[in-house]
Amino acid sequence: MDVAAVLDEFTRRDWQVSDGDAGPLRMAVVGLGWWTREEAIPAIADSELCETTVAVSRTREKACEVAAEFDGVERGLSGEEFHDGAATDVYDAVYVATPNATHLEYVQSAADFGKAVLCEKPMEASVERASRMVGAAEEAGVTLMIAYRMHTEPAVRRVRDLLRAGLLGDPVTVHGHMSQPLLSMIPDPDQWRLDPDLAGPGASVTDIGLYPLNTARFLLEADPIAVQASVDSTSDAFADVPDERAAFTLEFPQGVFATCTASQHASQSSHIELIGTEGRARIGPAFFASEPRQVTVASGETTVDVDFEGVDQMREEFDYFADCVFTDRAPEGDGDHGLTDMRIVEAIYEAGERGERVEL
Amino acid sequence: MDVAAVLDEFTRRDWQVSDGDAGPLRMAVVGLGWWTREEAIPAIADSELCETTVAVSRTREKACEVAAEFDGVERGLSGEEFHDGAATDVYDAVYVATPNATHLEYVQSAADFGKAVLCEKPMEASVERASRMVGAAEEAGVTLMIAYRMHTEPAVRRVRDLLRAGLLGDPVTVHGHMSQPLLSMIPDPDQWRLDPDLAGPGASVTDIGLYPLNTARFLLEADPIAVQASVDSTSDAFADVPDERAAFTLEFPQGVFATCTASQHASQSSHIELIGTEGRARIGPAFFASEPRQVTVASGETTVDVDFEGVDQMREEFDYFADCVFTDRAPEGDGDHGLTDMRIVEAIYEAGERGERVEL
Repeated sequence: MDVAAVLDEFTRRDWQVSDGDAGPLRMAVVGLGWWTREEAIPAIADSELCETTVAVSRTREKACEVAAEFDGVERGLSGEEFHDGAATDVYDAVYVATPNATHLEYVQSAADFGKAVLCEKPMEASVERASRMVGAAEEAGVTLMIAYRMHTEPAVRRVRDLLRAGLLGDPVTVHGHMSQPLLSMIPDPDQWRLDPDLAGPGASVTDIGLYPLNTARFLLEADPIAVQASVDSTSDAFADVPDERAAFTLEFPQGVFATCTASQHASQSSHIELIGTEGRARIGPAFFASEPRQVTVASGETTVDVDFEGVDQMREEFDYFADCVFTDRAPEGDGDHGLTDMRIVEAIYEAGERGERVEL
Repeated sequence: MDVAAVLDEFTRRDWQVSDGDAGPLRMAVVGLGWWTREEAIPAIADSELCETTVAVSRTREKACEVAAEFDGVERGLSGEEFHDGAATDVYDAVYVATPNATHLEYVQSAADFGKAVLCEKPMEASVERASRMVGAAEEAGVTLMIAYRMHTEPAVRRVRDLLRAGLLGDPVTVHGHMSQPLLSMIPDPDQWRLDPDLAGPGASVTDIGLYPLNTARFLLEADPIAVQASVDSTSDAFADVPDERAAFTLEFPQGVFATCTASQHASQSSHIELIGTEGRARIGPAFFASEPRQVTVASGETTVDVDFEGVDQMREEFDYFADCVFTDRAPEGDGDHGLTDMRIVEAIYEAGERGERVEL
């Protein structure tokens, strides 16, 4: 196996088991912020295996307004109506994209109705609530997937393939970074991402630091055993959160260190790079949905800049979710996988506060 | 000032004050390993302001052998002869490139003879010995420069210019990495770089982690106030040192975090990237003398891959040293600058051992 063979058919859906006949999986989308309207619903419309049939928002009015905007969305529901079991006959699964601290109740209701769930990350605002979410899905016997769109990003999958094929040697270190100018993107100082009651313990690690963190776990197919962290909030707008900026090191088994940074107050930038004993691979830009991905691979004496056509990460994610539901298999990013991230994130904040290595 | 204006005349010697008339500075090179023979002496031969007139090695025999190999080298001396003051009339300055723990005595002798000194990094094996070196140079009133070749690397200087011009906004975070397969390069398990008595407290941070560390300081024009670190030695060959691999975070003032990794047991790889509030700049490859440098700059909406002709870093370094000597000014990488690195390195090993943040 050589690099070219691994990178051939770069965007292949090596994860797809079902054929198109199984679908569509009818989705209720819960939480109608810009991400759902501009990214998720269009991605579902473009997907092979899903369609949106229900839109859920805090108010019925907004839900109906959004429902009317998109073809095929049959119903608009308030959160209360959703919890009361309205329209359960017109959807099969639920996508939850509300503020972090409000995920649990939606997932609980969905599980009670026997619906599969795709829940945005971070899965909740605390380990305790995330555990209850996993329990609710298990008890009801429904699929719970956490929306890690990098798991079906071809650039990430191909780098993992290179690693699995031994073409980078043993992994030695990972560098990952994600930053964005949050207050330029959403010029509202009272937004939920900066409100610990809605967002959870922080702003940068939870919301975007999770990308390098989780992608490192995915590439290495391992979980960290300890973390160290530095966090800082200097600007007034970030006074309520500990991490306007953060740097953290994940210590994986065999002394593999993944060193990651994140900031909600920096220019948009993202990358992940894995260095092994025999080569390295870099994806950059890596994590923003709308950016073209670039991949550079060095294996032995050869360095390759890979050209490939980017895919809609959200479309791939929704189809992967539906494929798992149709074939009754657990997604790689299942509830337990998400819960591990929650524990790591909690340890990062603890390490940052104490200035000490925290074991997991 | 825009990006193009800053990057214009990319390789300009903005540091040069003297004209060519001042030279040449006649160098005694001490320590004749592969680095001196293959990189340093040819670079001096190619320099504008320096020439090699004396070669010093442990044995007179080897010194004379190397002296005979190169045009213009008048004398070969044993270390003992050098310390005894032989041939002080045929050299003006001394380049010290012996194993770390043996630098001090050569610098002391050179200072006693009133010679300027360019000493390889890390400057010594301990903070205590490095302090004595600074004291010796100060007492004798001679120039002491530590051989940070990134200080005159145009890629690094131009990125600092961009930062100074505000084109990247305020710095937020730095990522830096350097790794190489030491035992493939020098297949000797008993080499001095793996011997704490000769190398100092470790193998990766001291020898190559110093590149991202020092370049972060140089770019940010600031010194870290605290460090955290993870170190690991798994392979048998690295049993005597703590850091076959290391990851460390330097906490600079204003919450700027530089997160760095280094390994002597990984594929050759190096990069440094600075992310600011308004842009970012990446140099990669960054730190190996023989690799072509690549620079990518993003400022606002514009991303530029910079094409430029690489320079011989060692030649630039020697000419900078000579220029400082001729104009009687302290180099940016003077003894105190190097001593700060030594203190940071010592703190990194302490932090790695204790699993705790160490303040500087």
